[in-house]
Amino acid sequence: MSLDQPPTARIWLNARLATLSRSSAGLGIVDRGAVAVSDGRIVYAGPEADLPSAVKAGAEIHDCEGRWITPGLIDCHTHLVYAGNRAKDFELRLQGVSYEQIARAGGGIVSSVRATREADDEQLMRQSLARLDALLAEGVTTIEIKSGYGLDLDNERKMLQAARRLTQERNVTVSTTFLGAHALPPESTRGKDDYIDNTVLPMLRVLTNEGLVDAVDAFCESIAFSPEQVQRVFKAAADLGLPVKLHADQLSNLRGAALAAEHHALSADHLEHTDEHSIAAMAAAGTVAVMLPGAFYFLREQHRPPVALLRQHGVAMAVATDCNPGTSPLTSLLLAMNMAATQFGMTVEECIAGVTREAARALGMEARKGSLEAGKHADLAIWNVESLSELVYRMGFNPLFARIWRGR
Amino acid sequence: MSLDQPPTARIWLNARLATLSRSSAGLGIVDRGAVAVSDGRIVYAGPEADLPSAVKAGAEIHDCEGRWITPGLIDCHTHLVYAGNRAKDFELRLQGVSYEQIARAGGGIVSSVRATREADDEQLMRQSLARLDALLAEGVTTIEIKSGYGLDLDNERKMLQAARRLTQERNVTVSTTFLGAHALPPESTRGKDDYIDNTVLPMLRVLTNEGLVDAVDAFCESIAFSPEQVQRVFKAAADLGLPVKLHADQLSNLRGAALAAEHHALSADHLEHTDEHSIAAMAAAGTVAVMLPGAFYFLREQHRPPVALLRQHGVAMAVATDCNPGTSPLTSLLLAMNMAATQFGMTVEECIAGVTREAARALGMEARKGSLEAGKHADLAIWNVESLSELVYRMGFNPLFARIWRGR
Ligand SMILES: [Zn+2]
Ligand SMILES: [Zn+2]
Repeated sequence: MSLDQPPTARIWLNARLATLSRSSAGLGIVDRGAVAVSDGRIVYAGPEADLPSAVKAGAEIHDCEGRWITPGLIDCHTHLVYAGNRAKDFELRLQGVSYEQIARAGGGIVSSVRATREADDEQLMRQSLARLDALLAEGVTTIEIKSGYGLDLDNERKMLQAARRLTQERNVTVSTTFLGAHALPPESTRGKDDYIDNTVLPMLRVLTNEGLVDAVDAFCESIAFSPEQVQRVFKAAADLGLPVKLHADQLSNLRGAALAAEHHALSADHLEHTDEHSIAAMAAAGTVAVMLPGAFYFLREQHRPPVALLRQHGVAMAVATDCNPGTSPLTSLLLAMNMAATQFGMTVEECIAGVTREAARALGMEARKGSLEAGKHADLAIWNVESLSELVYRMGFNPLFARIWRGR
Repeated sequence: MSLDQPPTARIWLNARLATLSRSSAGLGIVDRGAVAVSDGRIVYAGPEADLPSAVKAGAEIHDCEGRWITPGLIDCHTHLVYAGNRAKDFELRLQGVSYEQIARAGGGIVSSVRATREADDEQLMRQSLARLDALLAEGVTTIEIKSGYGLDLDNERKMLQAARRLTQERNVTVSTTFLGAHALPPESTRGKDDYIDNTVLPMLRVLTNEGLVDAVDAFCESIAFSPEQVQRVFKAAADLGLPVKLHADQLSNLRGAALAAEHHALSADHLEHTDEHSIAAMAAAGTVAVMLPGAFYFLREQHRPPVALLRQHGVAMAVATDCNPGTSPLTSLLLAMNMAATQFGMTVEECIAGVTREAARALGMEARKGSLEAGKHADLAIWNVESLSELVYRMGFNPLFARIWRGR
């Protein structure tokens, strides 16, 4: 359907639906369902028998032959826009070379900053599109993309502009996150406090004015920024009316998750070392826990995030790829689900909700995305599977039949 | 190039080669290389500057623009032909249901046997082709496929015939392995010894006479068959002139690897619990160690195979998917390489040799497959990567540019 056609309704019939509606139990399963869309939005999702006849008139009909339809998948935590890769670091590590030696040899995050700064717009787009296409091929319709390999105004802008431009190149919704507080750039000689106050905060204001920032993130860790420094970033975000999220408690417990909750963050991400006190705070604040099993796997970590406690406190859990060159060169959200199940013990239902409804919530998009409900964006994934558990169980297999973004 | 054309030579120029030639160090890298093929075989692989002019005359030229060429990938351990899946078992396990309860509810290997027996030829082919296509899309040109979900003559035959038929449907080389000694079938009431002597051995003779068997395998484990029972299978294989391989020491150390070596097995596979004595025997016998990290990952095992010892004793290591419904629903050999590196500490070079040269050796095909050398089959994989380490480093990304099987 091309853009210049009138907004005819399209209906997918004879489908099994996972609506992810909060008003239903579990995944909101409808055994013989239909989804009708018009003008980029869902106008009906539910039992085929109850499809209003007014909707049917003149609509374009698609028979799903019993296939499953879920909401389009949402990858709610990525660093997808960057240049170069860190395959060499990976190779050296396997040869027994230490992190310190790799850093001295020019590897580590600094090498991604250098490569991203050196790349022109065209190179950055080409490399990022290859990764994006891998995700879209698996039914992703919305993706969050962080800055954080530029670390100066021009290069953070370049990254966020590339993230915005991806929506012109592909049928996908992109949510941008400013992550100036990712690492101290190599040219910074006056320390982290100075970098936060005199580089990060001014960049945030400029880039927000330019309309490039949807949310603000920081990396809270002893090797990155302290809770106190993060707090200054969060206060600036609040002054600008921007929601926040946080890389929290991945390698140690700095109570990052509690800090995120205190600032009503949309999400706290990683959480391997988060304690119950912080989890209770997240539950009270409605902060989503974003599980990133790709990084856990790639770093061969042993300390799992406290999934049972998160479940017990009713904290919503999302699952994302964390796609990034250093710790999670992962471009499969289906594989992220398998890893969340296999490594963290998340159930099939939690994994599927984690890449749809809860991922939308982690991006502040729940009113528009993440479930099959009238009024929401018509983002669908249609699957060649007998049961939804196959989406989580298989490894390295893509059963996507079709992907619909905004009704197209 | 269609089959009815004359066998014009085809030449790939301006490529970086990993020849995997044993006469070169490491991966046999050629920085500016060429591969010439004619009539399904390689006639030249080496520096472009040394390409004989006689070969060039009239040849069809392909400019690789600096891309990497490796031998076509070889997945040397799969159970790719089966019907149904075990996604339901996976889902139940995540809900905390025990293996015993799952088995009582009709799950486990018996459910795969039942589904495979119930499937007709067309269903079995359709389901197997979907998995095969996922592997081929990543540059696999040769695959080993085991029987073992039939467990009676008609159904073991059906599986092996399906494996053979795959080569008519796709451009791929299939090596078949008879794995009648996979599990005790549900109808067997007289025990394992009776099943081996009165079912497995007669089936092996019949199916070998029918030309369906290239090698013989068994599952040596307390939950499967004893070393003594395996030995009877191996003796029958030797009488028929067939090479053997073994599922050895995966869950416990029954000295399966030593048993395999004693019978000059092509390979011993899994090896999580193999000891140094067995490794020395493998080295002496030239038995390849096949690493199956997908099963290790999926079963959340903790006891890694002794990679350092295998390396120290000079045992060749291959890497395979173990594609099967119960313990490794994996259809990505690239991901298997990443898992072998990340989980087992295999180097990039070991992983790449493990899916080419050493995998060919594990199938007794080293004279024809696994390296870019004159006289060998023209099976190539051409990659859109800057460095070969990217093949191992990335997760869920397919950088294949082109795949050539027997020159086509
Ligand atoms: Zn991240
Ligand atoms: Zn196996």
